[in-house]
Amino acid sequence: MAITVVGSVAYDTIETPAGRRERCLGGAATYFSLAASFFTNVRVIAVVGEDFGKRQEAVFQARNIDTRGIEHTAGKSFFWEGSYLENINEAKTHNTELNVFAAFEPKIPEAYGDSEFLFLANIDPVLQRRVREAMPDVKLVAGDTMNYWIKDHRAALLEVLKGLDILLINDTETKMLAGNNNLVQAARAVMALGPKTLVVKHGEYGATLFHGAKIFRAPALPLEEVIDPTGAGDSFAGGFFGYLAAQREITPAAYRSAMFYGGVMGSFACERFGTERMQKLTRPEIDARFNLFRELTHLD
Amino acid sequence: MAITVVGSVAYDTIETPAGRRERCLGGAATYFSLAASFFTNVRVIAVVGEDFGKRQEAVFQARNIDTRGIEHTAGKSFFWEGSYLENINEAKTHNTELNVFAAFEPKIPEAYGDSEFLFLANIDPVLQRRVREAMPDVKLVAGDTMNYWIKDHRAALLEVLKGLDILLINDTETKMLAGNNNLVQAARAVMALGPKTLVVKHGEYGATLFHGAKIFRAPALPLEEVIDPTGAGDSFAGGFFGYLAAQREITPAAYRSAMFYGGVMGSFACERFGTERMQKLTRPEIDARFNLFRELTHLD
Repeated sequence: MAITVVGSVAYDTIETPAGRRERCLGGAATYFSLAASFFTNVRVIAVVGEDFGKRQEAVFQARNIDTRGIEHTAGKSFFWEGSYLENINEAKTHNTELNVFAAFEPKIPEAYGDSEFLFLANIDPVLQRRVREAMPDVKLVAGDTMNYWIKDHRAALLEVLKGLDILLINDTETKMLAGNNNLVQAARAVMALGPKTLVVKHGEYGATLFHGAKIFRAPALPLEEVIDPTGAGDSFAGGFFGYLAAQREITPAAYRSAMFYGGVMGSFACERFGTERMQKLTRPEIDARFNLFRELTHLD
Repeated sequence: MAITVVGSVAYDTIETPAGRRERCLGGAATYFSLAASFFTNVRVIAVVGEDFGKRQEAVFQARNIDTRGIEHTAGKSFFWEGSYLENINEAKTHNTELNVFAAFEPKIPEAYGDSEFLFLANIDPVLQRRVREAMPDVKLVAGDTMNYWIKDHRAALLEVLKGLDILLINDTETKMLAGNNNLVQAARAVMALGPKTLVVKHGEYGATLFHGAKIFRAPALPLEEVIDPTGAGDSFAGGFFGYLAAQREITPAAYRSAMFYGGVMGSFACERFGTERMQKLTRPEIDARFNLFRELTHLD
C-alpha cells in the first residue's frame, strides 16, 4: 500500500575520511523514499529550486517514486554542508541554507489522497501537523524529528506527537524529549505523549523497538568501512515503514522484521556517498543482507 | 569443567543515583566467580588483607567457590571508591588503594592443577602471564584488560595476548589496542595479536563476538533502573566463560549462547549494589532471563 512522505529534498556537500562530494542529491524525503521504494509505492511531497533538474528527477523515476508532489519554485534547493572527520558517527554542520524550503507550504496532490501510510520526515512540526491533518484517513502515521524542534519548538512538536502512531528518533532525542536519562523510562514517557510505538536508533549499535509493553532489539551491521553515514537514519525509516506498508496485516512479528529491514537499509546507505548505493541496490541484495542480520543475532 | 580465575578480591565504596554503599565486597575475580559459579566449578587465586573475614568468605562458600587460592596477608585488601552520578555508564574513580595487592604474587594451589579453563581477570599483565605460564595444560584461556595496561604496559600485555584464546574488552579498549577507530578493523587487528576470539562489550548496547571470520551480536537488557553497574563486565565474563566451561563440546552455537548468558549475568549485576543481586540469584531466574534475551532479539 502506498506511502506518502513529506520532507526535504536537498543538496548535500559531504566530507568524510573516505573523501568529499559536492552537492550530492540528499534530504530526508529522498533517502526515505529510495529505501521504502524497494517494498511499496512511495509518493513524495517536497519543494525544490531551479537547480533540481532532469538528472535528479531521474533518480526518483528509476525507483518508480511518484514525484507529482515535489513543487518546483524559483530559487535554490535546500543545501547542507557537513563533515564526519573527527567522528564518523556524528555530523559536524558547516553550513545550512534553507533557500526555497524557508517558504515551504506542503501541497498534497489529489492523486496522493488514497495513501494509507504517511511518513512525516524531520521538518518543522507546524508543517508536519498540517500534512497530518490534511490526510485524516491514513491507516498508519510515522514520523521523525530532531533536537532543534525538541528544544525550541516543543509545543508544536507535542501537537504532532498526538497524531503519530510511530515515532523514530535516536537515543539523545528520546532522553531530551522525555527529560529522563534512562532509556526505558524515557521511552515510556515519550509513548505517553502519543505514539504507541517508538523506535530508538542507536547508530552503530542498532535500534530498539518499544511497542506497547514489548521491547525488541535489532542490530546494526558491523561495517568495515563507513563511507558516508548521511541519510542512514532516513534509510532506516524507509526500510522499516516501507516493509510495514507492504504487509497485509501489521502484526508484532511484522514490526520485528521491519526493524531488521530498517537496519538493512541503513547499512547500505553508509556504503557509498549520498544516495549512490541506494540507487544501485537490488532486492536480492536486500534479502541476502536480511539473512545476514538473522545470522548475526539468532542462536540457531 | 573447572575454571581457575586470577584477579582482584576487593572492597568498593560506590555512589550512584540510587544511593551509596561503603566497602561492599567487590573485585573482578569476585564478580567473575559468582557469575561463573552458576554454570561450573570455580577456583579463585587472589590476595586479601586482614579485613577479609568469615562474612566475605561465606559469600564464596555459598556458591561452592574454591577459595584455597585466596592468600591472606597482613594489611588491608585492595580498595576502590567511585561514583556514577553524572553518567551511569561511566565510573568516576575517587580513590584506589592497592594495599596488599601491590605485592601480589599469585600462587596456584596444587588442587587447582587440573583446571581446564583459565580466566585472567584485569590485573598487571606481568602477573597474568605468570599464571598463564604456570598452567600450560589448560584447554581454553580467556582474559580481560583495561586502558591503563594498554597505554602504559603494552609490551607486557602483548605477551599475554599471545597466550589467550579469548579476549573480553570494551569498544574503547579495542580501538585503543588496535590504534584503529573502526570496530571491525580494530577487532581484526586485535585478533592478529593472539586471541582467535574477541568479545567486545558495548555496555547498555550489548556485546559483539568476533570468532574467526564470524560475527555475532548479543543485546543487553534495557533496564528500567540501573542501581549499580560495578562488576557488570566481570559478571558478563563469568556468565560467558562459565557457560562455555560447562559444555561438552565448544561449538560456534555454544559461543552464541555464551554471549547471551554473559548479557544475562551482566544485567543481573546492575540490579543491586555490589554483589547483592548475584548472591541471591537462582538458576531458574537465569534461564527465564535467557529466554527474555531470545524474545528480545529473535524474529520468531
